[in-house]
Amino acid sequence: MQKFGGSSVADPESIKRVAKRIVETRKAGNEVVVAVSAMGDTTDELLDLAAQVTPIPGGRELDMLLTAGERISMALLSMAIRGLGVEARSYTGSQAGMITDAQHGKARIVDVTPGRVREALDQGAVAIVAGFQGFNRSTGDITTLGRGGSDTTAVALAAALDADVCEIYTDVDGIFTADPRVVPRAKKLDRITSEEMLELAAAGSKVLYIRAVEYARRHGVTLHVRSSFNNNEGTLVVNPKEGEHVEEPIIAGIAGDLSEGKITVVGVPDKPGKAALIFRTVAKTGANIDMIVQNVSAAATSLTDISFTLPKSEGAVVMQALQSERDEIEFSELLYDDQIGKLALVGAGMRTNAGVTAKLFTALFEAGINIEMISTSEIRISVVTRADILNDAMRIVHSAFELDADQLAVVHGGTGR
Amino acid sequence: MQKFGGSSVADPESIKRVAKRIVETRKAGNEVVVAVSAMGDTTDELLDLAAQVTPIPGGRELDMLLTAGERISMALLSMAIRGLGVEARSYTGSQAGMITDAQHGKARIVDVTPGRVREALDQGAVAIVAGFQGFNRSTGDITTLGRGGSDTTAVALAAALDADVCEIYTDVDGIFTADPRVVPRAKKLDRITSEEMLELAAAGSKVLYIRAVEYARRHGVTLHVRSSFNNNEGTLVVNPKEGEHVEEPIIAGIAGDLSEGKITVVGVPDKPGKAALIFRTVAKTGANIDMIVQNVSAAATSLTDISFTLPKSEGAVVMQALQSERDEIEFSELLYDDQIGKLALVGAGMRTNAGVTAKLFTALFEAGINIEMISTSEIRISVVTRADILNDAMRIVHSAFELDADQLAVVHGGTGR
Repeated sequence: MQKFGGSSVADPESIKRVAKRIVETRKAGNEVVVAVSAMGDTTDELLDLAAQVTPIPGGRELDMLLTAGERISMALLSMAIRGLGVEARSYTGSQAGMITDAQHGKARIVDVTPGRVREALDQGAVAIVAGFQGFNRSTGDITTLGRGGSDTTAVALAAALDADVCEIYTDVDGIFTADPRVVPRAKKLDRITSEEMLELAAAGSKVLYIRAVEYARRHGVTLHVRSSFNNNEGTLVVNPKEGEHVEEPIIAGIAGDLSEGKITVVGVPDKPGKAALIFRTVAKTGANIDMIVQNVSAAATSLTDISFTLPKSEGAVVMQALQSERDEIEFSELLYDDQIGKLALVGAGMRTNAGVTAKLFTALFEAGINIEMISTSEIRISVVTRADILNDAMRIVHSAFELDADQLAVVHGGTGR
Repeated sequence: MQKFGGSSVADPESIKRVAKRIVETRKAGNEVVVAVSAMGDTTDELLDLAAQVTPIPGGRELDMLLTAGERISMALLSMAIRGLGVEARSYTGSQAGMITDAQHGKARIVDVTPGRVREALDQGAVAIVAGFQGFNRSTGDITTLGRGGSDTTAVALAAALDADVCEIYTDVDGIFTADPRVVPRAKKLDRITSEEMLELAAAGSKVLYIRAVEYARRHGVTLHVRSSFNNNEGTLVVNPKEGEHVEEPIIAGIAGDLSEGKITVVGVPDKPGKAALIFRTVAKTGANIDMIVQNVSAAATSLTDISFTLPKSEGAVVMQALQSERDEIEFSELLYDDQIGKLALVGAGMRTNAGVTAKLFTALFEAGINIEMISTSEIRISVVTRADILNDAMRIVHSAFELDADQLAVVHGGTGR
């Protein structure tokens, strides 16, 4: 199973290059199934056309429109492979048996029935499958899987076809200990567990999408994240079995995230039910909140402050919702801070290795970097700093944990995905 | 049933204009099904992409690629209608039940099962159907109907849904007595029989494709060819019932065609089997020959000449095939002439009206125009002239049969389809 993203098939020349790569894999004796995204900016161009026609396109019609993108790239890729003398057939999500629920724009896969793909493989053909798209049985309508959907397509097909490996081709060489554009001495990892990868993705790493990693983990699919621009080995995302002894590095990687803001509800009565009311109010907006910190209340006043982080895009709505419940919550003030940076340190080795937190704090303290919020999970420590020093903090922590490579990382263009 | 061609939906503005028109029809109380072509030059752009990837794209993959075009236009049109407050749903050829045989690039419709379209109408929605595309049941593959396929989609759906009328929106005002770009005094016809329309289309008229007219005739669908740029009545293409008395004009229209060439096989022995051998040889190439003329053989030599016309694109192949059978056919010379023009005069009234041929010949003779070949059917007379005087001949014949309008026709841009 191989997956090629939009930047790998941006134009006819790139498509021919990818076709050559696929043909080599096929000629080496492998059965090959390929999931492919829309060419380069096609999806954005289609969205732009839709916006010119109406501000409210409707989910069903938008999915119908966007799925034209992969239809074009997969047909061209299939032709290019045939042009190199290898039989290839392209399949839409529906033809490949990607059965989803009916949530347009963010459908979830409910079943994968790749009978036609299996048949193509049995006949010696390469099967090219449209990424990102599926089909709902009860409505008979075309759906899309949302952001990172092509990765999910590849993983789901790899699982259903029991593929040896699911190669995710991208414009970076693999998973790094940190984003090489921020930390030039970031090191490519040879392997990482899916658990660590999930934490990194949740903390802002953009190379793989959470849903695809979750799906791979649940179905025991090994991912191989590698570059479509060279033949170097990339990073294996593995699923060690329960009880299997694996030598885990203490720290797998560091992620930084500047996309969140912080809301502080000041002067809340420290009584049962007040915090619950705040988070019920937030939940009603559908916002996805992350780190939560409640100060110890000052004994004299019995008032406390509650802070939490959330995507900046949801800041205004949540502020408005809280303001409208002011009389019920009885807070004195509501603060919004969009100048925060979030740094996360991820590693399965943390479980058995004490002192990680202390080492992190010491390194940041010695560099004069103030920590505003902290939250931890079993294999992750996240801290909030000022936004303008996040990148410095990442480089400092990267060095402190001795992750620095001997050489500078090579950074390709593109968005890092 | 309404059909909009590529020039009617070339850009977001045009799509919004078409949407408004559809909404007006819906609000007037009509159920509306729309067949739509790909936007403007989309199909050519996709073909160009394919050519950049491989010279031999393969029929299945090419159909997969090209059908992305209508997917885009139909989704955008559906969104635009929804943006005007009317429910609309788009359907691919497969979803709309356009079942075809498996001939990629020129599939024939074998069944139409528009259950989902019917359902959409019953729920008050406008149904937008991708023109030009279908689905083969046995292979499970997407097919395309070839040139004029969107017209055929519209007619086939109109028949299956028992629509009152099938409106074909185009960039001309209707069917004219001749191409207004050649004959400025051409007159728009209010009505024409499908039989006459078939003859005109076969003789080079580009407004409607033969297959769509044939389908409409066989299934008794009335076509209304009209402009998408104004609200004028266009031309009705009707199917008078057997025995129904209709006042037929003698001449419905004149068509000119510069796309054919002429092959003459000189000095063929006037023996049984020689002509048959020639046409068997031609048939093997798959070429579509049209007018055939065999000279009376010169008594002294018992040799005859056989001429026929065929599309210029097939000229070289047929010449080569005949040359290779020279010993069998025993001809003395093979001539190819690509400077011919074909003029056809079509009218159901010819059946009962003698003297049409005489009037045609007289008019051309008086104008000094030489007739090189003649062929006639029940309602058509075709003559071959030199290519460079075809347009003059058309204007002369148009006047001679008193078809000239009082006013000059308004000609829009575009290709006339």
